[in-house]
Amino acid sequence: MAGVSSDPNKLGSIIYTNLLSNARHGILKARVYALNPFHTVLFGRPCFARVQSLPETPELLILTVPVSLALGLVKDAAEAGVAGAILITSGYAEAGRGDLEQEIWRIASRKGMRILGPNTMGLLDTRSGVNSLFLRPSKPIPGGGEIVSLLPPLKGEIAIITQSGHLGEVISEELASNGIGIRALVGTGNQLDVSVEDVIDYFADDSHTKSIALYLEGLRDGRRFLTAAVRAVKKKPLIVYKVGKTETGARAARTHTASLVGNYEVYRTAFRQAGIVEARNLQELVDYCTSFAMLPKCVGNHLAIITNAGGIGVVAADEAEESGLHVKPLEESLKRELRSKFRDGGFISNAALGNPIDLTASASTGEFVTVVQTILKTKSIDLALILPTHQTPAMDYDLASRLSEIVHASGKPVCMCVMGRSNLAAKIHSDFMKKGIPDFPTPERAVRALAALSEYYLGKRAAHSPFPLEGVDKPTVVARLTSRHARENINSLLRECGILEPASQIIKSIHGARNFHRIRFPLACKLLSKDLTHKSDIGGVLLDVQGLDDLASAFARLRAIARSEGIRFEGMLVQEMVHGGMEAILGGVRDPTFGPVVIFGLGGIFTELSKEFVPTIAPISPIEAKKLIGRTKLSAGLEGYRGREKVNVNLLSRTVSKFSRLMVDYPAITEIEVNPLVLKGDKFLALDSRFALSTKH
Amino acid sequence: MAGVSSDPNKLGSIIYTNLLSNARHGILKARVYALNPFHTVLFGRPCFARVQSLPETPELLILTVPVSLALGLVKDAAEAGVAGAILITSGYAEAGRGDLEQEIWRIASRKGMRILGPNTMGLLDTRSGVNSLFLRPSKPIPGGGEIVSLLPPLKGEIAIITQSGHLGEVISEELASNGIGIRALVGTGNQLDVSVEDVIDYFADDSHTKSIALYLEGLRDGRRFLTAAVRAVKKKPLIVYKVGKTETGARAARTHTASLVGNYEVYRTAFRQAGIVEARNLQELVDYCTSFAMLPKCVGNHLAIITNAGGIGVVAADEAEESGLHVKPLEESLKRELRSKFRDGGFISNAALGNPIDLTASASTGEFVTVVQTILKTKSIDLALILPTHQTPAMDYDLASRLSEIVHASGKPVCMCVMGRSNLAAKIHSDFMKKGIPDFPTPERAVRALAALSEYYLGKRAAHSPFPLEGVDKPTVVARLTSRHARENINSLLRECGILEPASQIIKSIHGARNFHRIRFPLACKLLSKDLTHKSDIGGVLLDVQGLDDLASAFARLRAIARSEGIRFEGMLVQEMVHGGMEAILGGVRDPTFGPVVIFGLGGIFTELSKEFVPTIAPISPIEAKKLIGRTKLSAGLEGYRGREKVNVNLLSRTVSKFSRLMVDYPAITEIEVNPLVLKGDKFLALDSRFALSTKH
Repeated sequence: MAGVSSDPNKLGSIIYTNLLSNARHGILKARVYALNPFHTVLFGRPCFARVQSLPETPELLILTVPVSLALGLVKDAAEAGVAGAILITSGYAEAGRGDLEQEIWRIASRKGMRILGPNTMGLLDTRSGVNSLFLRPSKPIPGGGEIVSLLPPLKGEIAIITQSGHLGEVISEELASNGIGIRALVGTGNQLDVSVEDVIDYFADDSHTKSIALYLEGLRDGRRFLTAAVRAVKKKPLIVYKVGKTETGARAARTHTASLVGNYEVYRTAFRQAGIVEARNLQELVDYCTSFAMLPKCVGNHLAIITNAGGIGVVAADEAEESGLHVKPLEESLKRELRSKFRDGGFISNAALGNPIDLTASASTGEFVTVVQTILKTKSIDLALILPTHQTPAMDYDLASRLSEIVHASGKPVCMCVMGRSNLAAKIHSDFMKKGIPDFPTPERAVRALAALSEYYLGKRAAHSPFPLEGVDKPTVVARLTSRHARENINSLLRECGILEPASQIIKSIHGARNFHRIRFPLACKLLSKDLTHKSDIGGVLLDVQGLDDLASAFARLRAIARSEGIRFEGMLVQEMVHGGMEAILGGVRDPTFGPVVIFGLGGIFTELSKEFVPTIAPISPIEAKKLIGRTKLSAGLEGYRGREKVNVNLLSRTVSKFSRLMVDYPAITEIEVNPLVLKGDKFLALDSRFALSTKH
Repeated sequence: MAGVSSDPNKLGSIIYTNLLSNARHGILKARVYALNPFHTVLFGRPCFARVQSLPETPELLILTVPVSLALGLVKDAAEAGVAGAILITSGYAEAGRGDLEQEIWRIASRKGMRILGPNTMGLLDTRSGVNSLFLRPSKPIPGGGEIVSLLPPLKGEIAIITQSGHLGEVISEELASNGIGIRALVGTGNQLDVSVEDVIDYFADDSHTKSIALYLEGLRDGRRFLTAAVRAVKKKPLIVYKVGKTETGARAARTHTASLVGNYEVYRTAFRQAGIVEARNLQELVDYCTSFAMLPKCVGNHLAIITNAGGIGVVAADEAEESGLHVKPLEESLKRELRSKFRDGGFISNAALGNPIDLTASASTGEFVTVVQTILKTKSIDLALILPTHQTPAMDYDLASRLSEIVHASGKPVCMCVMGRSNLAAKIHSDFMKKGIPDFPTPERAVRALAALSEYYLGKRAAHSPFPLEGVDKPTVVARLTSRHARENINSLLRECGILEPASQIIKSIHGARNFHRIRFPLACKLLSKDLTHKSDIGGVLLDVQGLDDLASAFARLRAIARSEGIRFEGMLVQEMVHGGMEAILGGVRDPTFGPVVIFGLGGIFTELSKEFVPTIAPISPIEAKKLIGRTKLSAGLEGYRGREKVNVNLLSRTVSKFSRLMVDYPAITEIEVNPLVLKGDKFLALDSRFALSTKH
């Protein structure tokens, strides 16, 4: 421990005294030494000048020393054979001292020493007792005495990985306040060496970890993250809360694709592809951790909602439908069975046996329990949410003890929502938590905690490797994307994908227009100019040109437009008019985090207006491509919408898959977009396409 | 009080003993009498046989008697001149006994007696002490003793109106747990007489009510509600949480309009038009009540976020952007001023002076306070969110007392978010609440509580009367919508609105097709059949027909289609082809709750695929229509998108306004839809329109 001083309020002193206290209480199974060349004794224990003066070589060095002193200490430690170091202090790359970080990394990596941080709270491990969090468990209050300022984490099986130490600690406190423990809390800081992905890999393999929660601000290498995530998800749930949602990448926009795809959307796509459960806020992250820690697996998404107070059931049903759970009406046989449990008629005749099941304010605890038991035995119900109000006269204080055995015996995930702020409400909440049944303060949170479960267990089957190159056809054409022949090469690559161009011809003069005969009228005429990206913005596209006279005047008009806009005029592209079909957009872009990304959706002028398209991380297999197409609003239109020709979706899926592979195989293509891509039966026509090439390749 | 019995667990007994207790404690300023013909003494006090035997005529009668006994009691009371009755018991209209309700209403209304309920918890008034909630303040626990089962409401200025007694009570408890009081809690039950709108009217005028919160399941008369809401909103905030979001009205769908507009969307539209603040869940309703109760007015929506822990600031900024608040960077002059406060350089040189402002973990309480003070003095900042972590070594326990004067002196709305579950966190939370500064447990909730404030104060100016008939042009044509001439009449009404039809002609025979000359080619050909709603679904629309031969074969083809589909063939409608322009949809439908509703948005085949349209409650003025158009995704396309002709939006606004008036003036039109409505400059062309007429008118 380097950075301990005589001031007990310094970070190093706080960590040192916390570690000593852990060792004293048998939580930490390791010896702790303080390093400080200016002291021989600190906090009543011997203090050492440097790593080399220690009585033994430590496994771990924690540093809270100023930036200027770190390098020497790291060098000492690396040479002494220390396995790892945690650099707590800030002031490195985030403050413009990236050079110093790199120097530290060079020295450490040469000796195989791993580094966590810098600029992090570090690590709290509830199994080994290692704790580098510089937080006091209590703070002084005026007039003497202390107040607890930190709810210590409990030992458990949730690994928390965080890019904000503060929020990681808050997550741990929230869990502890509900009696839920954690395996460890790891802040990754500047990720000089140990990255979020390394830590995911570690906890994926750790047999003491049941689930992993991640607070994420940003990633450096999205593909590395996806590989780690998919591997983890196959073993245990990975819950991610990503912030920075509204930030949009500042990309140069040659194609719509590049300007349309927001950073956060690509993250969400990645999460979905990897089978990650996304929490929308910190509270959800905590709630999802709670449900994964406390609930069994789920095998379906049919939810039963049981209440004795009307309104709250409606709220829960709303949220369930929005969260992807099914709240279907009770089967007649189940209703009969329920009624048969109360032969005298009794309260059940007034109950609303729908779903939600509203037992009304007259239900007693015993009746409530009987109904829950019957519902949980029903095969077609996979999950249950129980919403009891305890305030009605006939409900007793002991609901939890009477329900717990039934709930656990069912083997199904069951959540409670007990609302209210009275002592009785608090008692019932704590009873349920102690009995191992999660209770949430609002019906929405309870529903979403159940939905997360179903999302993971039903979704993890669908989680696929982010690089399914095996299943994806590689283009057979090998195109050299030099800028000289770029257009022809791109077109031949698109043809490989099954995307054809309409018959077209370039006309360079009025004379050429007057004598044109190659393509059947009507024709579409487009202004050709290197200076122009979106032709139609300036009236550079003329449709339905019907004869030679019109063609000549179209040429004159486009030339005049070019002149008035002050752009080079390189002629007029003449194409056959394509009528009918659905207009799609198919685009590819390189995301700074995740690399090649493909989008597909509504095309034509509606692309920008409606923004109805779905991104995916490339490459994708034809099967994944088909799912992608199915998620777009366009998909309804592919089934022969309103008299249009039905589109061959299997063929289209292969095209999208090949196109995605193209983005991987040709890194020189920084952006590409086919829009509109007209889909007619088995024919996919690129009415227009744009691309940008990197000069580096 | 009718329904008291010797059983202390009966609803009537609970209410009676609660009232007696209120009277004893001076909370209830009224005398309480029990009615029960079978007892002379109950709970140690005299009991009376009927209203007429009471020593005085009561103002209010509370009934918990069985349904069968209610009528007699109401009759007695009405004749004795009782002003009002609360019918607690259920088993009336909701259980098929609407007849009994009506009979009760008839008797009561004849004598001018008002009725609340039946099927309700009734009323809790913290000023008069009247309380008909049948909830025990405590419940017995085994081995003797009682546990508090109800947190009693505090006296305050929030009126809670609820369609679920249970949730109303939960709202009141949540507020009480944070020290916030209520003016009253009113459950409206079956609304036999007193309706949600009556209660809104009452509290709008009540000088002791500062804000109104409404838990809403459904309305009977949306227009009556809007009138009451707009009136209330002009005086004080009205916060509504509406459930039943996923329910879709089961409407017959002749037009897309009718099938597309969900019930909940129309509610949301109504809320927005009336300036109501919508809460998305119960927690938000409570949070918004809290901020309106504790915070001053706001005059703008520029938010400053101040924290000493990075991550939480990012979370808050995300949520602020999503909630419509602006988090703009600090001005250079403000940064300079901030730095000047710490002349020695010190901590501020490491702070991130963006927005969020991150003072980093090294900031002390004093430094934190100085920064907040400087920020709150800045003119361009309207609201502030303060996110302190109290766990860093330099932060003291007394943040609340040091901040409160500064915050209140600023006169600006300021929220706190203190996270964590330790005793210190709880102390700081309660300190802030006591000092009158709302503190929320998550940054998202704090941001939304501030956003609600800005939504109300900035939005109430825009709240407009739901019936602005004065500003809306009335069609001059008086059309009799008999089914015989319905089509012509509808067309003339549309022409009045400025919507023209393309030149068209009906062809009845092959001969007619061969000799056609009225309209210039190319032509669009449409199958005419009364049996057909969506022509293009079966290939009944042929576009770009180029000459007489093609026209004849189009006729033959449509006739063949009609034959193979088994529908009547009534000829072929021939129209000029309209090229270019933007395709919109303009539709009208009658919502069961809110009456005439108009939608406008992306038209053509994209209407159903993208569902990009916005509903509004009709009629709307041209100014409102312009705003409506501005909210659609189509609006970007009206500015001359990609070389298309710019659309005259002022003219279009007048057209939409007139169209909305048409829905009001012609109740016989149950549904109407123009789709596609092609917009080209000053020309609005109905390429297709459909309508349905009520047979009742």
